[in-house]
Amino acid sequence: MTPEHAQHFADLVLWRRDVRRFKTDAVPNGVLAKIIDLADHAPSVGNSQPWRIVRVTTPSIRNDVRANFERANAAAAATYPDDTVRRDYLGLKLEGFDAAPEHLAVFCACATEQGRGLGIRTMPEMLSYSCVSMIATLWYAARAEGLGLGWVSILDPADVTSALGVPRDWKLIGYLLLGYPIEEHTDPELVRAGWQPRTPIQSRFLER
Amino acid sequence: MTPEHAQHFADLVLWRRDVRRFKTDAVPNGVLAKIIDLADHAPSVGNSQPWRIVRVTTPSIRNDVRANFERANAAAAATYPDDTVRRDYLGLKLEGFDAAPEHLAVFCACATEQGRGLGIRTMPEMLSYSCVSMIATLWYAARAEGLGLGWVSILDPADVTSALGVPRDWKLIGYLLLGYPIEEHTDPELVRAGWQPRTPIQSRFLER
Repeated sequence: MTPEHAQHFADLVLWRRDVRRFKTDAVPNGVLAKIIDLADHAPSVGNSQPWRIVRVTTPSIRNDVRANFERANAAAAATYPDDTVRRDYLGLKLEGFDAAPEHLAVFCACATEQGRGLGIRTMPEMLSYSCVSMIATLWYAARAEGLGLGWVSILDPADVTSALGVPRDWKLIGYLLLGYPIEEHTDPELVRAGWQPRTPIQSRFLER
Repeated sequence: MTPEHAQHFADLVLWRRDVRRFKTDAVPNGVLAKIIDLADHAPSVGNSQPWRIVRVTTPSIRNDVRANFERANAAAAATYPDDTVRRDYLGLKLEGFDAAPEHLAVFCACATEQGRGLGIRTMPEMLSYSCVSMIATLWYAARAEGLGLGWVSILDPADVTSALGVPRDWKLIGYLLLGYPIEEHTDPELVRAGWQPRTPIQSRFLER
Protein backbone atom coordinates (compact mmCIF):
# COMPACT_ATOMS: atom_id res chain seq x y z
CA MET A 1 0.00 0.00 0.00
CA THR A 2 1.10 3.55 -0.77
CA PRO A 3 -0.26 6.97 0.19
CA GLU A 4 -1.72 7.12 -3.33
CA HIS A 5 -3.89 4.08 -2.57
CA ALA A 6 -5.61 6.02 0.20
CA GLN A 7 -5.88 9.23 -1.80
CA HIS A 8 -7.21 7.51 -4.90
CA PHE A 9 -9.76 5.53 -2.92
CA ALA A 10 -10.90 8.73 -1.19
CA ASP A 11 -11.39 10.26 -4.65
CA LEU A 12 -13.69 7.37 -5.59
CA VAL A 13 -15.73 7.61 -2.38
CA LEU A 14 -16.15 11.37 -2.42
CA TRP A 15 -17.23 11.39 -6.03
CA ARG A 16 -19.27 8.25 -5.69
CA ARG A 17 -22.81 9.41 -6.17
CA ASP A 18 -26.01 7.65 -6.94
CA VAL A 19 -26.13 8.67 -10.60
CA ARG A 20 -29.44 9.29 -12.35
CA ARG A 21 -28.32 11.38 -15.34
CA PHE A 22 -26.57 9.24 -17.90
CA LYS A 23 -25.21 9.60 -21.40
CA THR A 24 -26.54 6.92 -23.75
CA ASP A 25 -22.99 5.93 -24.81
CA ALA A 26 -22.48 2.18 -24.59
CA VAL A 27 -20.27 0.66 -21.89
CA PRO A 28 -17.62 -1.42 -23.68
CA ASN A 29 -18.07 -5.14 -22.98
CA GLY A 30 -14.51 -5.40 -21.76
CA VAL A 31 -15.03 -2.67 -19.19
CA LEU A 32 -18.26 -4.24 -17.95
CA ALA A 33 -16.57 -7.63 -17.62
CA LYS A 34 -13.60 -6.08 -15.84
CA ILE A 35 -15.61 -4.33 -13.14
CA ILE A 36 -17.91 -7.31 -12.58
CA ASP A 37 -14.91 -9.59 -12.24
CA LEU A 38 -13.38 -7.28 -9.65
CA ALA A 39 -16.65 -6.98 -7.73
CA ASP A 40 -16.87 -10.77 -7.71
CA HIS A 41 -13.83 -10.63 -5.39
CA ALA A 42 -15.81 -8.70 -2.78
CA PRO A 43 -15.97 -10.16 0.73
CA SER A 44 -18.71 -12.73 1.36
CA VAL A 45 -19.74 -14.66 4.45
CA GLY A 46 -18.18 -18.12 4.43
CA ASN A 47 -16.80 -17.28 0.95
CA SER A 48 -20.34 -18.03 -0.22
CA GLN A 49 -20.39 -15.53 -3.14
CA PRO A 50 -24.22 -15.54 -2.97
CA TRP A 51 -24.78 -12.76 -5.51
CA ARG A 52 -26.38 -13.50 -8.88
CA ILE A 53 -26.01 -10.78 -11.49
CA VAL A 54 -28.55 -10.53 -14.29
CA ARG A 55 -27.65 -8.28 -17.22
CA VAL A 56 -30.95 -7.09 -18.63
CA THR A 57 -30.93 -6.15 -22.32
CA THR A 58 -34.38 -7.26 -23.55
CA PRO A 59 -36.41 -4.06 -24.18
CA SER A 60 -39.73 -5.53 -23.02
CA ILE A 61 -38.22 -6.61 -19.71
CA ARG A 62 -36.61 -3.21 -19.24
CA ASN A 63 -39.99 -1.62 -19.89
CA ASP A 64 -41.64 -3.89 -17.32
CA VAL A 65 -39.13 -2.82 -14.70
CA ARG A 66 -39.53 0.84 -15.57
CA ALA A 67 -43.32 0.53 -15.29
CA ASN A 68 -42.80 -1.19 -11.93
CA PHE A 69 -40.78 1.84 -10.81
CA GLU A 70 -43.45 4.27 -12.02
CA ARG A 71 -46.13 2.47 -10.00
CA ALA A 72 -43.98 2.19 -6.87
CA ASN A 73 -42.93 5.81 -7.13
CA ALA A 74 -46.50 7.07 -7.47
CA ALA A 75 -47.44 5.03 -4.40
CA ALA A 76 -44.44 6.42 -2.51
CA ALA A 77 -45.38 10.00 -3.42
CA ALA A 78 -48.88 9.39 -2.09
CA THR A 79 -47.46 8.67 1.36
CA TYR A 80 -46.49 12.34 1.77
CA PRO A 81 -49.66 14.07 2.98
CA ASP A 82 -48.25 17.58 2.64
CA ASP A 83 -48.84 18.96 -0.86
CA THR A 84 -45.54 20.86 -0.95
CA VAL A 85 -43.52 17.86 0.20
CA ARG A 86 -45.27 15.62 -2.31
CA ARG A 87 -44.55 18.07 -5.11
CA ASP A 88 -40.90 18.27 -4.00
CA TYR A 89 -40.72 14.49 -3.98
CA LEU A 90 -42.20 14.19 -7.46
CA GLY A 91 -39.73 16.81 -8.69
CA LEU A 92 -36.75 14.67 -7.73
CA LYS A 93 -35.01 12.67 -10.42
CA LEU A 94 -34.66 9.30 -8.71
CA GLU A 95 -33.55 7.03 -11.56
CA GLY A 96 -31.92 7.03 -14.97
CA PHE A 97 -34.15 4.64 -16.93
CA ASP A 98 -34.34 7.20 -19.75
CA ALA A 99 -30.72 6.82 -20.79
CA ALA A 100 -28.65 4.31 -18.81
CA PRO A 101 -27.13 1.88 -21.31
CA GLU A 102 -26.73 -1.01 -18.84
CA HIS A 103 -29.21 -2.56 -16.41
CA LEU A 104 -27.96 -5.07 -13.84
CA ALA A 105 -30.31 -6.81 -11.42
CA VAL A 106 -28.58 -8.29 -8.38
CA PHE A 107 -30.19 -11.14 -6.47
CA CYS A 108 -29.18 -13.15 -3.42
CA ALA A 109 -29.28 -16.93 -3.81
CA CYS A 110 -30.22 -17.33 -0.17
CA ALA A 111 -30.38 -21.13 -0.40
CA THR A 112 -26.83 -21.49 -1.74
CA GLU A 113 -24.77 -24.29 -0.25
CA GLN A 114 -21.52 -22.51 -1.04
CA GLY A 115 -19.93 -21.51 2.25
CA ARG A 116 -21.44 -24.55 3.97
CA GLY A 117 -23.55 -22.43 6.27
CA LEU A 118 -20.59 -20.74 7.91
CA GLY A 119 -21.41 -17.46 9.63
CA ILE A 120 -25.15 -17.42 8.91
CA ARG A 121 -26.73 -19.36 11.76
CA THR A 122 -27.49 -16.43 14.04
CA MET A 123 -27.40 -13.77 11.29
CA PRO A 124 -28.79 -15.30 8.08
CA GLU A 125 -29.03 -11.79 6.64
CA MET A 126 -25.24 -11.98 6.14
CA LEU A 127 -25.94 -13.52 2.73
CA SER A 128 -27.85 -10.43 1.62
CA TYR A 129 -25.19 -8.24 3.19
CA SER A 130 -22.52 -10.03 1.17
CA CYS A 131 -24.44 -9.10 -1.99
CA VAL A 132 -24.45 -5.48 -0.87
CA SER A 133 -20.69 -5.55 -0.35
CA MET A 134 -20.40 -6.80 -3.93
CA ILE A 135 -22.55 -3.89 -5.14
CA ALA A 136 -20.52 -1.35 -3.15
CA THR A 137 -17.37 -2.79 -4.70
CA LEU A 138 -18.91 -2.59 -8.17
CA TRP A 139 -19.84 1.01 -7.46
CA TYR A 140 -16.25 2.07 -6.78
CA ALA A 141 -14.86 -0.11 -9.57
CA ALA A 142 -17.29 1.53 -12.01
CA ARG A 143 -16.32 4.98 -10.83
CA ALA A 144 -12.64 4.21 -11.32
CA GLU A 145 -13.48 3.52 -14.98
CA GLY A 146 -15.31 6.84 -15.31
CA LEU A 147 -18.74 5.21 -15.00
CA GLY A 148 -21.63 6.11 -12.72
CA LEU A 149 -24.00 3.71 -11.01
CA GLY A 150 -27.53 4.28 -9.74
CA TRP A 151 -29.24 1.88 -7.35
CA VAL A 152 -33.03 1.79 -7.82
CA SER A 153 -34.94 0.57 -4.76
CA ILE A 154 -38.35 2.05 -5.56
CA LEU A 155 -39.60 -1.22 -7.03
CA ASP A 156 -41.83 -4.11 -6.04
CA PRO A 157 -39.17 -6.84 -5.63
CA ALA A 158 -41.53 -9.74 -6.34
CA ASP A 159 -42.56 -8.19 -9.65
CA VAL A 160 -38.93 -7.75 -10.68
CA THR A 161 -38.19 -11.39 -9.87
CA SER A 162 -41.20 -12.41 -11.93
CA ALA A 163 -40.38 -10.12 -14.89
CA LEU A 164 -36.87 -11.53 -15.08
CA GLY A 165 -37.93 -15.15 -14.73
CA VAL A 166 -35.30 -16.01 -12.14
CA PRO A 167 -35.74 -18.66 -9.43
CA ARG A 168 -38.35 -17.67 -6.87
CA ASP A 169 -35.99 -18.23 -3.97
CA TRP A 170 -33.66 -15.55 -5.28
CA LYS A 171 -34.13 -12.31 -3.35
CA LEU A 172 -33.81 -8.99 -5.16
CA ILE A 173 -31.07 -6.88 -3.58
CA GLY A 174 -30.85 -4.06 -6.07
CA TYR A 175 -31.62 -2.99 -9.62
CA LEU A 176 -28.61 -1.08 -10.90
CA LEU A 177 -28.38 1.37 -13.77
CA LEU A 178 -24.92 1.93 -15.18
CA GLY A 179 -23.37 4.27 -17.73
CA TYR A 180 -21.25 7.34 -18.24
CA PRO A 181 -22.53 10.28 -16.19
CA ILE A 182 -23.59 13.52 -17.86
CA GLU A 183 -21.88 15.63 -15.24
CA GLU A 184 -19.22 15.38 -12.57
CA HIS A 185 -20.02 16.57 -9.06
CA THR A 186 -19.38 15.49 -5.50
CA ASP A 187 -22.60 16.71 -3.91
CA PRO A 188 -25.36 14.07 -3.84
CA GLU A 189 -28.48 14.72 -5.90
CA LEU A 190 -30.66 14.81 -2.76
CA VAL A 191 -28.41 17.44 -1.18
CA ARG A 192 -28.50 19.55 -4.35
CA ALA A 193 -32.27 19.30 -4.54
CA GLY A 194 -32.69 20.27 -0.90
CA TRP A 195 -34.34 17.00 0.09
CA GLN A 196 -31.83 15.80 2.68
CA PRO A 197 -28.49 17.38 3.69
CA ARG A 198 -25.66 15.41 5.23
CA THR A 199 -25.57 15.51 9.02
CA PRO A 200 -22.55 15.68 11.37
CA ILE A 201 -20.87 12.36 12.17
CA GLN A 202 -20.98 13.13 15.90
CA SER A 203 -24.60 11.98 15.93
CA ARG A 204 -23.58 8.60 14.55
CA PHE A 205 -20.50 7.77 16.64
CA LEU A 206 -20.38 6.80 20.29
CA GLU A 207 -18.08 5.04 22.72
CA ARG A 208 -18.72 2.24 25.16
CA MET B 1 -10.05 9.51 -12.75
CA THR B 2 -6.76 8.00 -13.92
CA PRO B 3 -5.68 4.43 -14.75
CA GLU B 4 -4.00 4.40 -11.33
CA HIS B 5 -7.37 4.86 -9.64
CA ALA B 6 -8.55 1.58 -11.13
CA GLN B 7 -5.31 -0.26 -10.44
CA HIS B 8 -5.06 0.96 -6.87
CA PHE B 9 -8.66 0.09 -6.11
CA ALA B 10 -8.13 -3.38 -7.59
CA ASP B 11 -5.15 -3.77 -5.23
CA LEU B 12 -7.42 -3.01 -2.26
CA VAL B 13 -10.13 -5.44 -3.37
CA LEU B 14 -7.82 -8.33 -4.17
CA TRP B 15 -5.99 -8.01 -0.87
CA ARG B 16 -9.15 -7.25 1.05
CA ARG B 17 -9.53 -10.27 3.27
CA ASP B 18 -11.56 -10.92 6.34
CA VAL B 19 -8.64 -10.62 8.78
CA ARG B 20 -8.53 -12.72 11.94
CA ARG B 21 -4.82 -12.59 12.78
CA PHE B 22 -3.87 -9.20 14.16
CA LYS B 23 -0.88 -7.53 15.73
CA THR B 24 -1.72 -5.87 19.03
CA ASP B 25 -0.22 -2.54 17.86
CA ALA B 26 -2.61 0.34 18.48
CA VAL B 27 -4.36 2.07 15.59
CA PRO B 28 -3.51 5.79 15.83
CA ASN B 29 -6.59 7.85 16.69
CA GLY B 30 -6.02 10.03 13.65
CA VAL B 31 -6.05 7.04 11.33
CA LEU B 32 -9.21 5.65 12.90
CA ALA B 33 -10.95 9.03 12.60
CA LYS B 34 -9.80 9.39 8.99
CA ILE B 35 -11.18 6.07 7.79
CA ILE B 36 -14.46 6.46 9.69
CA ASP B 37 -14.91 9.92 8.23
CA LEU B 38 -14.38 8.57 4.72
CA ALA B 39 -16.75 5.65 5.31
CA ASP B 40 -19.34 8.14 6.53
CA HIS B 41 -19.44 9.36 2.92
CA ALA B 42 -20.62 5.96 1.70
CA PRO B 43 -23.85 5.85 -0.33
CA SER B 44 -27.07 5.65 1.67
CA VAL B 45 -30.70 5.43 0.64
CA GLY B 46 -32.31 8.87 0.68
CA ASN B 47 -29.01 10.20 2.09
CA SER B 48 -30.25 8.72 5.38
CA GLN B 49 -26.81 7.79 6.78
CA PRO B 50 -28.54 5.25 9.08
CA TRP B 51 -25.34 3.69 10.48
CA ARG B 52 -24.39 4.13 14.13
CA ILE B 53 -20.81 3.24 14.99
CA VAL B 54 -19.95 2.21 18.54
CA ARG B 55 -16.28 2.09 19.43
CA VAL B 56 -15.98 -0.51 22.17
CA THR B 57 -13.05 -0.09 24.55
CA THR B 58 -14.45 -1.23 27.93
CA PRO B 59 -12.80 -4.59 28.73
CA SER B 60 -15.89 -6.10 30.40
CA ILE B 61 -18.05 -5.32 27.36
CA ARG B 62 -15.42 -6.76 25.03
CA ASN B 63 -15.38 -9.90 27.16
CA ASP B 64 -19.18 -10.15 27.00
CA VAL B 65 -19.08 -10.01 23.21
CA ARG B 66 -16.29 -12.55 23.03
CA ALA B 67 -18.25 -14.93 25.30
CA ASN B 68 -21.27 -14.34 23.04
CA PHE B 69 -19.14 -15.47 20.08
CA GLU B 70 -17.90 -18.56 21.92
CA ARG B 71 -21.47 -19.64 22.67
CA ALA B 72 -22.73 -18.95 19.14
CA ASN B 73 -19.74 -20.70 17.62
CA ALA B 74 -20.20 -23.83 19.73
CA ALA B 75 -23.85 -23.92 18.70
CA ALA B 76 -22.88 -23.46 15.06
CA ALA B 77 -20.35 -26.30 15.26
CA ALA B 78 -23.05 -28.57 16.67
CA THR B 79 -25.09 -28.14 13.49
CA TYR B 80 -22.53 -30.16 11.51
CA PRO B 81 -23.48 -33.82 12.13
CA ASP B 82 -20.38 -35.23 10.45
CA ASP B 83 -17.51 -35.56 12.95
CA THR B 84 -14.83 -34.69 10.42
CA VAL B 85 -16.67 -31.61 9.19
CA ARG B 86 -17.30 -30.46 12.75
CA ARG B 87 -13.63 -30.90 13.61
CA ASP B 88 -12.67 -28.96 10.47
CA TYR B 89 -15.08 -26.20 11.46
CA LEU B 90 -13.72 -25.96 14.98
CA GLY B 91 -10.18 -25.82 13.55
CA LEU B 92 -10.95 -22.63 11.61
CA LYS B 93 -9.85 -19.31 13.04
CA LEU B 94 -12.98 -17.23 12.56
CA GLU B 95 -12.22 -14.11 14.60
CA GLY B 96 -9.41 -12.05 16.05
CA PHE B 97 -10.68 -11.27 19.55
CA ASP B 98 -7.30 -12.36 20.97
CA ALA B 99 -5.38 -9.40 19.56
CA ALA B 100 -7.42 -6.87 17.55
CA PRO B 101 -6.82 -3.44 19.13
CA GLU B 102 -10.08 -1.90 17.91
CA HIS B 103 -13.67 -3.15 18.18
CA LEU B 104 -16.41 -1.34 16.26
CA ALA B 105 -20.05 -2.38 16.48
CA VAL B 106 -22.20 -1.09 13.63
CA PHE B 107 -25.95 -0.71 14.08
CA CYS B 108 -28.75 0.44 11.82
CA ALA B 109 -31.04 3.12 13.26
CA CYS B 110 -33.98 1.73 11.33
CA ALA B 111 -36.39 4.35 12.69
CA THR B 112 -34.29 7.30 11.54
CA GLU B 113 -36.20 10.19 10.00
CA GLN B 114 -33.17 11.31 8.01
CA GLY B 115 -33.91 10.69 4.35
CA ARG B 116 -37.62 11.33 4.92
CA GLY B 117 -38.54 7.79 3.96
CA LEU B 118 -37.23 8.10 0.43
CA GLY B 119 -36.49 4.76 -1.25
CA ILE B 120 -37.58 2.51 1.59
CA ARG B 121 -41.31 1.98 1.09
CA THR B 122 -41.14 -1.23 -0.94
CA MET B 123 -37.64 -2.21 0.23
CA PRO B 124 -37.22 -1.13 3.88
CA GLU B 125 -34.10 -3.31 4.04
CA MET B 126 -32.33 -0.55 2.09
CA LEU B 127 -31.49 1.06 5.45
CA SER B 128 -29.56 -2.03 6.56
CA TYR B 129 -27.99 -2.25 3.12
CA SER B 130 -26.78 1.33 3.43
CA CYS B 131 -25.00 0.35 6.64
CA VAL B 132 -23.33 -2.51 4.79
CA SER B 133 -22.13 -0.15 2.08
CA MET B 134 -20.59 1.96 4.83
CA ILE B 135 -18.81 -1.12 6.23
CA ALA B 136 -17.54 -2.14 2.78
CA THR B 137 -16.19 1.39 2.34
CA LEU B 138 -14.55 1.25 5.75
CA TRP B 139 -12.99 -2.09 4.78
CA TYR B 140 -11.23 -0.66 1.74
CA ALA B 141 -10.33 2.60 3.51
CA ALA B 142 -8.75 0.56 6.32
CA ARG B 143 -6.81 -1.54 3.86
CA ALA B 144 -5.47 1.55 2.14
CA GLU B 145 -3.98 2.52 5.52
CA GLY B 146 -2.36 -0.88 5.94
CA LEU B 147 -5.05 -2.10 8.34
CA GLY B 148 -7.10 -5.28 8.24
CA LEU B 149 -10.75 -5.67 9.19
CA GLY B 150 -12.64 -8.76 10.31
CA TRP B 151 -16.45 -8.91 10.35
CA VAL B 152 -17.79 -11.19 13.08
CA SER B 153 -21.31 -12.48 12.42
CA ILE B 154 -21.26 -15.53 14.71
CA LEU B 155 -23.03 -13.66 17.50
CA ASP B 156 -26.47 -13.37 19.02
CA PRO B 157 -27.41 -9.85 17.85
CA ALA B 158 -29.86 -9.18 20.69
CA ASP B 159 -27.20 -9.98 23.28
CA VAL B 160 -24.74 -7.60 21.62
CA THR B 161 -27.34 -4.83 21.62
CA SER B 162 -27.97 -5.49 25.30
CA ALA B 163 -24.27 -5.69 26.25
CA LEU B 164 -23.61 -2.33 24.59
CA GLY B 165 -26.65 -0.63 26.07
CA VAL B 166 -27.73 0.96 22.81
CA PRO B 167 -31.37 1.71 21.90
CA ARG B 168 -33.40 -1.44 21.37
CA ASP B 169 -34.60 -0.34 17.95
CA TRP B 170 -31.03 -0.29 16.67
CA LYS B 171 -30.32 -3.39 14.63
CA LEU B 172 -26.87 -4.97 14.77
CA ILE B 173 -25.34 -5.09 11.30
CA GLY B 174 -21.81 -6.20 12.16
CA TYR B 175 -19.22 -6.41 14.89
CA LEU B 176 -15.90 -5.39 13.38
CA LEU B 177 -12.40 -6.11 14.60
CA LEU B 178 -9.69 -3.83 13.29
CA GLY B 179 -5.92 -3.70 13.48
CA TYR B 180 -2.68 -4.28 11.63
CA PRO B 181 -2.58 -7.76 10.10
CA ILE B 182 0.14 -10.24 11.01
CA GLU B 183 0.62 -11.36 7.44
CA GLU B 184 -0.13 -10.21 3.92
CA HIS B 185 -1.87 -12.56 1.54
CA THR B 186 -4.55 -12.42 -1.13
CA ASP B 187 -6.11 -15.85 -0.61
CA PRO B 188 -9.03 -15.85 1.85
CA GLU B 189 -8.61 -17.76 5.10
CA LEU B 190 -11.43 -20.16 4.18
CA VAL B 191 -9.74 -20.98 0.86
CA ARG B 192 -6.41 -21.59 2.59
CA ALA B 193 -8.02 -23.84 5.16
CA GLY B 194 -9.86 -25.86 2.51
CA TRP B 195 -13.31 -24.94 3.78
CA GLN B 196 -14.68 -23.20 0.67
CA PRO B 197 -12.86 -22.41 -2.60
CA ARG B 198 -13.93 -19.62 -4.91
CA THR B 199 -16.20 -20.74 -7.75
CA PRO B 200 -16.29 -19.53 -11.39
CA ILE B 201 -18.26 -16.37 -12.06
CA GLN B 202 -20.15 -18.03 -14.92
CA SER B 203 -22.44 -19.63 -12.33
CA ARG B 204 -23.36 -16.20 -11.01
CA PHE B 205 -23.93 -14.21 -14.19
CA LEU B 206 -26.81 -14.50 -16.62
CA GLU B 207 -28.52 -12.47 -19.31
CA ARG B 208 -32.16 -11.66 -19.86
